[in-house]
Amino acid sequence: MNRVNIAVLGLGTVGQGVIMLLKKQKEEMKKATGCEICLKRCLEKFITKKLDVELEPGVLTDHWSEVLNDPEIQIVIETIGGIEPARTYILQALRAGKNVVTANKDLLAACGQELFKAAAEAHKDLYYEASVGGAIPLVGPLRQSLAASHLSQVMGIVNGTTNYILTRMEREGRAFDDILQDAMNLGYSEADPSADIEGYDAARKMAILATLAFHSQVTINDVYVEGISRVDLEDIRSARRLGYAVKLLGIARLDRQLIEVRVHPALIPLDHPLASVHDNMNAILVNGRDLGDSMFYGVGAGRLPSASAILGDVAAIARNIKNDCEGRLNLLDRRERAIKPMQDVETRFFLRLVLADRPGVLAQIAEVLGNHGVSLARVLQTNLREGDAELVLVTHGVRDGDMQLALTEISGLAATREIVTVLRVEGLE
Amino acid sequence: MNRVNIAVLGLGTVGQGVIMLLKKQKEEMKKATGCEICLKRCLEKFITKKLDVELEPGVLTDHWSEVLNDPEIQIVIETIGGIEPARTYILQALRAGKNVVTANKDLLAACGQELFKAAAEAHKDLYYEASVGGAIPLVGPLRQSLAASHLSQVMGIVNGTTNYILTRMEREGRAFDDILQDAMNLGYSEADPSADIEGYDAARKMAILATLAFHSQVTINDVYVEGISRVDLEDIRSARRLGYAVKLLGIARLDRQLIEVRVHPALIPLDHPLASVHDNMNAILVNGRDLGDSMFYGVGAGRLPSASAILGDVAAIARNIKNDCEGRLNLLDRRERAIKPMQDVETRFFLRLVLADRPGVLAQIAEVLGNHGVSLARVLQTNLREGDAELVLVTHGVRDGDMQLALTEISGLAATREIVTVLRVEGLE
Repeated sequence: MNRVNIAVLGLGTVGQGVIMLLKKQKEEMKKATGCEICLKRCLEKFITKKLDVELEPGVLTDHWSEVLNDPEIQIVIETIGGIEPARTYILQALRAGKNVVTANKDLLAACGQELFKAAAEAHKDLYYEASVGGAIPLVGPLRQSLAASHLSQVMGIVNGTTNYILTRMEREGRAFDDILQDAMNLGYSEADPSADIEGYDAARKMAILATLAFHSQVTINDVYVEGISRVDLEDIRSARRLGYAVKLLGIARLDRQLIEVRVHPALIPLDHPLASVHDNMNAILVNGRDLGDSMFYGVGAGRLPSASAILGDVAAIARNIKNDCEGRLNLLDRRERAIKPMQDVETRFFLRLVLADRPGVLAQIAEVLGNHGVSLARVLQTNLREGDAELVLVTHGVRDGDMQLALTEISGLAATREIVTVLRVEGLE
Repeated sequence: MNRVNIAVLGLGTVGQGVIMLLKKQKEEMKKATGCEICLKRCLEKFITKKLDVELEPGVLTDHWSEVLNDPEIQIVIETIGGIEPARTYILQALRAGKNVVTANKDLLAACGQELFKAAAEAHKDLYYEASVGGAIPLVGPLRQSLAASHLSQVMGIVNGTTNYILTRMEREGRAFDDILQDAMNLGYSEADPSADIEGYDAARKMAILATLAFHSQVTINDVYVEGISRVDLEDIRSARRLGYAVKLLGIARLDRQLIEVRVHPALIPLDHPLASVHDNMNAILVNGRDLGDSMFYGVGAGRLPSASAILGDVAAIARNIKNDCEGRLNLLDRRERAIKPMQDVETRFFLRLVLADRPGVLAQIAEVLGNHGVSLARVLQTNLREGDAELVLVTHGVRDGDMQLALTEISGLAATREIVTVLRVEGLE
């Protein structure tokens, strides 16, 4: 039986999960790979930290060199997170001829190209299934079964915390802050929830997925991001009345040779497959020219789902080592496609405005919108308190830049009390 | 640039789709694999048949030996369908050192082991992504990312035709035969629709999925099968009133060391992820011990989706050829797990009975059920025409064998006019 030695870097939640699961799945790993997977080293800065797992004597170290310079270690699993020292460790490991598994979306979304290049030069494997969608097999299919397909769009719900918050706001009619607190208590969100709430976690995942789908470098800086902190209960209720759910969507689309990539809250029709993705679930729709649509759905995070995804990668690499074909999936050809500026992105909009309730105001708004090429698909008007009316509009498709100009003009009208909400609408033909 | 020569066997809908797509996707294939994929031979019995694709001179043949004995052909794509001659061709191709891609679920569900064994002995690849779920990547993830996970259940909607029929019966309140005719006109169903309607197509796919998920031989003969031809509109209406949808489900489950595998119509709660899979869509839920649940959703059939899945397999094999690591995914260890007899399978039931409407009849039914260990979860009674009442029951979990005994006893009661419907209920805790 071949023996493959591995090291785990960083004994946080996921790192320890990998060690637990490796013990539990020893037999399955052996049967799936024909190799015995041995945990030779664990690197942890806080070497006296209390652990949930028991390690063999001599396995724990706080010296990176004891991993890097050990020629017997063939796979390094990076679960430290963040940019440094993870970046340096991964680059050095690859250059030393080791294969790498990482779940580090921050790093991949910031410096993916540098890592992929290092893996390709070393002819070693760099696998990262756990970086997007937890245990949902998504990175694997995009790198393999779908690699030669012509993909046109990847769209989905890729952050569990925000989906949990939006689902409960809708279901219970409770306010954002209230439910955020619950999410934090349940451990669905980090101590600092801003990466979730402001959309950065989703944006990192979309950068990784867009890179994979379109074989072109997309980083976190290329992604247009809006979070959900300004979505209020009344938006959700109005959307529902019009037949829509509000979701934080990630969208990556290839429009001729330009890549459109963005994360923002959006209305989607209630009968859209993504509208029934509730609670902390994730779902990603992949559309291809001749492929039809495929959707991948499941739990997007958590210790054991992430650890399962990592062990799936370890098993694949072990098989590659045994067959001497590491580096087989490193991308051979990279296209350099430009990112479409957000102002050129065309979407429908949902607007909620408070206006002076007097004759001719609706006509005035419609005229300003029309002057900027915005035509209306639906209009709902409700009288509010004395003298004010609420106008809810859904537009047809319009360039983002044109809509921003129209909004500036609307905000300057004497009749405009407030532009309460500006949300995009997706998932309609 | 490496050159990989392929042959397509059988120029039916899918076979011609492969040739079309290969032309269209030539550049993507090159970029994804680093190889040029060349169509060297097409085998077609009816050599004068009118084709939708144009072939280079000399490519078309009706002699299998011209494919088999050509040492330059490295991948054979079998799209003939059925057992023979497909089985013989695939076995001979593998033994001659060729890799094989097939979409043939009939063959895999009947003689999969023989083919897998031949591939393993030859150290060649046998890929079959298109055999289940069209272009939805499902076989690949089960063979790779999920191969070392402990899977407990695979459950899904794996036949588009029957799902289309059930969806439209529910939506439009029209009868089975009526909608079947539409499905045939739309090309969703074969000229002889019985393989779809009676559940055999789904059963073949479940045999393939169960084999993959549980690393143990499961054939079509191991699958308990009931089709949808006896599901009537009133069943769908009653189920809906109770909060359920009726779907043709495939279920493969590992219960300790026994494999439970079956295809039958079943009620599932309306908020279950599979309940919102409509029309001709397919969806497969995979549950694992530490994995959470993942669902794969998409179009399950059709010329181009199937051809896309086949080209994904061709790309993977081309990469394997280039790296000299074919046969890497052939299963190393096979467990021999027994199939659980259907009488030992425990499920809930939905019953619709017509009974004499007189005092004490419900108590009598409940007593017979109770004597066989069946307890009731819900009861709905409706008065019908004079003297008769309809009783709709949902039970708690019960062994299938016990339920059959109870039903025999109920059918013998003086008060029983008719046992109208016996359906299983799935997807509840």
